[in-house]
Amino acid sequence: MEAIVEELGESEALRLIGQAQVGRIGFTGRYGPVVLPVNYKVIDAGIVFRVEMYATLGEDLRTGIPGAEYRVAFEVDELLPPTQSGWMVMIQGTAHHVDDEAGRAELLQAGVGQWAAVENALFMRITPVHVAGRRISRG
Amino acid sequence: MEAIVEELGESEALRLIGQAQVGRIGFTGRYGPVVLPVNYKVIDAGIVFRVEMYATLGEDLRTGIPGAEYRVAFEVDELLPPTQSGWMVMIQGTAHHVDDEAGRAELLQAGVGQWAAVENALFMRITPVHVAGRRISRG
Repeated sequence: MEAIVEELGESEALRLIGQAQVGRIGFTGRYGPVVLPVNYKVIDAGIVFRVEMYATLGEDLRTGIPGAEYRVAFEVDELLPPTQSGWMVMIQGTAHHVDDEAGRAELLQAGVGQWAAVENALFMRITPVHVAGRRISRG
Repeated sequence: MEAIVEELGESEALRLIGQAQVGRIGFTGRYGPVVLPVNYKVIDAGIVFRVEMYATLGEDLRTGIPGAEYRVAFEVDELLPPTQSGWMVMIQGTAHHVDDEAGRAELLQAGVGQWAAVENALFMRITPVHVAGRRISRG
């Protein structure tokens, strides 16, 4: 069947990512582009997740400058090969680590975690600047 | 249960991506980092897929210089939220478009396609340079 491609509005795109759990963060690392999966939550219109401080993601996204921001892309999709249908959302925005005690406590309380928990994990927040998405369905 | 994190060797990582169908390509676009899902195949140790020539991905990855290469990341995962287990593989490598007739014919023949087919689609090939992966299981 013919594919029907529909652009998603921002509110629909944000609603969809609010219902999923795993997304992929992309950024330009020290050795070129990087894409890594993260287990995230949407809190206060931001994408929040934890990363290992000394793994690639934590190292690259820590600039050492308090409050510094890093440009990232964040992608979530639900694509079903058997029917060649589904949706994808990509956010472009800025990432920074949550390093104040109140902010960390709020995210801990909200259950923002990692599958393989480690000590000294960093909390990161992505603030969306540009949101786009598409749905592919079959007529 | 405690998470067991295991690094994957290159051959195991390539075997796993050979069995999946949807991956995400990441690169530095004109407006910052980009992550987009693609329907791919592994052919001759390369990741091949089609993109719309005039969409973001096609535009950004076309340099206009014949044979030119573009640094990209390519990520595939199978992560299961209910059990917080699964695997992920990230390839860093170079992407270029397949613009010779013999190469295009080979990929068409191999059934490399897009879910929403368009005319004038570009065939792209990623040549892996660095391959890494992890498996998370529960003890």
